[in-house]
Amino acid sequence: MNLILLSGGSGKRLWPLSNDIRSKQFIKIFKDEDGEYISMVQRMHSLIRKVDTDAVVTIATSKSQVSAIHNQLGENVGISVEPARRDTFPAIALAAAYLHFEKRVPLEESVVVCPVDPYVEEDYFQALKELGNQADKGEANLVLMGIEPTYPSEKYGYIIPEDKEMVSKVETFKEKPDAATAQAYIEKGALWNGGVFAFRLGYLLEKAHELFDFTDYKDMFRRYTEMEKISFDYAVVEKEPKIQVMRFHGQWKDLGTWNTLTEAMEENAIGNVMMNENCENVHVINDLDMPILCMGLKNTIVSASPQGILVSDAEQSSYIKPFVDKLDQEVMFAEKSWGSYRVLDVEDRSMTIMVTLNPGHHMNYHAHQEREEIWNIISGEGVVVLDGKRREISSGDVIHMPIGCKHTVQAKTELKIVEVQIGKDISVQDKIKYDWNFA
Amino acid sequence: MNLILLSGGSGKRLWPLSNDIRSKQFIKIFKDEDGEYISMVQRMHSLIRKVDTDAVVTIATSKSQVSAIHNQLGENVGISVEPARRDTFPAIALAAAYLHFEKRVPLEESVVVCPVDPYVEEDYFQALKELGNQADKGEANLVLMGIEPTYPSEKYGYIIPEDKEMVSKVETFKEKPDAATAQAYIEKGALWNGGVFAFRLGYLLEKAHELFDFTDYKDMFRRYTEMEKISFDYAVVEKEPKIQVMRFHGQWKDLGTWNTLTEAMEENAIGNVMMNENCENVHVINDLDMPILCMGLKNTIVSASPQGILVSDAEQSSYIKPFVDKLDQEVMFAEKSWGSYRVLDVEDRSMTIMVTLNPGHHMNYHAHQEREEIWNIISGEGVVVLDGKRREISSGDVIHMPIGCKHTVQAKTELKIVEVQIGKDISVQDKIKYDWNFA
Repeated sequence: MNLILLSGGSGKRLWPLSNDIRSKQFIKIFKDEDGEYISMVQRMHSLIRKVDTDAVVTIATSKSQVSAIHNQLGENVGISVEPARRDTFPAIALAAAYLHFEKRVPLEESVVVCPVDPYVEEDYFQALKELGNQADKGEANLVLMGIEPTYPSEKYGYIIPEDKEMVSKVETFKEKPDAATAQAYIEKGALWNGGVFAFRLGYLLEKAHELFDFTDYKDMFRRYTEMEKISFDYAVVEKEPKIQVMRFHGQWKDLGTWNTLTEAMEENAIGNVMMNENCENVHVINDLDMPILCMGLKNTIVSASPQGILVSDAEQSSYIKPFVDKLDQEVMFAEKSWGSYRVLDVEDRSMTIMVTLNPGHHMNYHAHQEREEIWNIISGEGVVVLDGKRREISSGDVIHMPIGCKHTVQAKTELKIVEVQIGKDISVQDKIKYDWNFA
Repeated sequence: MNLILLSGGSGKRLWPLSNDIRSKQFIKIFKDEDGEYISMVQRMHSLIRKVDTDAVVTIATSKSQVSAIHNQLGENVGISVEPARRDTFPAIALAAAYLHFEKRVPLEESVVVCPVDPYVEEDYFQALKELGNQADKGEANLVLMGIEPTYPSEKYGYIIPEDKEMVSKVETFKEKPDAATAQAYIEKGALWNGGVFAFRLGYLLEKAHELFDFTDYKDMFRRYTEMEKISFDYAVVEKEPKIQVMRFHGQWKDLGTWNTLTEAMEENAIGNVMMNENCENVHVINDLDMPILCMGLKNTIVSASPQGILVSDAEQSSYIKPFVDKLDQEVMFAEKSWGSYRVLDVEDRSMTIMVTLNPGHHMNYHAHQEREEIWNIISGEGVVVLDGKRREISSGDVIHMPIGCKHTVQAKTELKIVEVQIGKDISVQDKIKYDWNFA
């Protein structure tokens, strides 16, 4: 199976555990078989491997998520990075070009596209395989997955099939309706449109050529910003007469808000949490080191990270976005391909950060124009490079980098550094990158 | 007026804003006339000054609170420090000896004793003055303040007066009753015992001599641990036949638990807090830099500091003590006579702390046996001393103190330091003090 996972999304609705860098799919709230916490994207990745060990998985995403994906899935995962934000059609076209021109997937093979964030089980991936098989048959140019509705939701678009067979032609599509209309659709056999579909690779590349002239993946990548912002639905689905829908009646949940996400949690508390016996339907996710004590709460969600603290009635938690928009925060923690960081303290003219480098990894070689930095090595061993000079470092060492000093560090063992930044204007933009080869 | 303020109390019931060092009376949740946040002890101190500018105020307290008192009230406040924890009688006797032998207060002057933590207004201090005046008359050896009950509380002891005059002889005392008994007492004219009383200084020193043989304040201080642990009620009040009670009907509230404390707050939120319009009777005190967002909460208290986060139903918040006992935490923030500190990060073998030194102040000259330390000066100017050598420091300087290095720092302007501690066994006990004179 060739699978394109669409990994997008903003960090607003699951604040404070998501932020501008960490979208909801990277929050670790599920457990794997060993009892380790894993994220939505890790969970999905391991379920795919279970169902189809040979699946060719490509994650279509934006630049901002690449580090987090490598951090959580390793270096060997296929990623198609959008050079700029366009809409779903350009993103899917780019990933398709990547599969054909870079991964050498033949044009007649089918490809399945699905979003990375629904909460699903193994049967879903089995269904994705069948979706691909159905596309292989060539009865239709596009095969959609139709999710059997569990309630008359106003949140989803609806697919009206011609009949109630497992695979059916599509009669028509309906935009998000009100509950009464949704109920009427469902009585007629309508299905939710979960944004999951399969096609032969050649078909999609043809569609891409119709809208945009390109020679290969590299050419499309280079000229990506020239592509029109257009959704896959609008560019392809609405214009295609040969469409089928395949029913899926297994577990499929959108965990996009705190109340839906916490319903999928296996336990009520994650992290350093105490609750008294008078708490009812309380979910707490604590990503801070300090303890959270809950007393006599009902139907409440508490969530804490270095970004902040949310305390919300479960139902009200779906309305947080405008409040989080108002906050307009700096990113206070992030998972990077080389490790992670979290902000410990922010002052007028300084910032203190805990940096963790994973063994064998290193930062970019870089310098700052507006700030000096001090590295306090608190544990581990590694090598720093300062203006071209290498130096071995370990716990207790202190490295002072004046403004303009080129610097990088590589970890031999896991390396923890308290980084103190001092300057008038401390900003993530103040970074000039240089080349350095540790090998 | 000679006033002894009893400042005791543990940091459990108002966790996380109180801790082993900061008792509830030091939490800044009230506003002064300029809109600055002040603590209970600062509020009480300024009310006393308003009513009686010449009042001789002595705070009877334990060693652990001395730094916080100096931090909040300045260096010139009178403090009688208990060398060890005894009970209320030894503490009052020590403060009385301090007043007579150190402050030269004559034996015939009256002294008023009151706890530092009730929430009161100016009229209360007016009443304390009258209590002292009544003791001056010599009609009784002890004059108690009887607070007119507002409800049949089970939390207080009751004083049964002989009549309903403003000043009356005491018929008897009753321990904390159940509500029905309390109601019956109140109908007979009973008053709450708020632990406020006045006596002539000579009387109390006589009582002290009856129980303990001492020559002067210094002698009592030196031999304080030899004194019996005995309460003032048991040692004096219950045995004294000549007792009067004076009624007080003004504002008097015990703010010892989160629900009572928040009722006295002038506003619903202190610190970086957002609430949506569906919050009702929600009080939030946020001592952290990060934002707290509250959505759709009712009758809820949220309180956050570097110690942790409390989210509690208002009524349930009075039952937190056993949970806080379980936490058994290190102190994560403190106000010291020289400034303040807060823990930013704790790792296996390191700890990162933000230290703020007030201008002109300095730490003790000291060394550690089990840890090295690094000072990252992030703002301000000062002088460090390392193994006897002075050095001027300012923002950007880094000072590395190996194990055993004697060190101290004095602030010229407010000095902020990120202190990184590294060692196998990091503990507040690991501190050897030395002498150093900055003058």
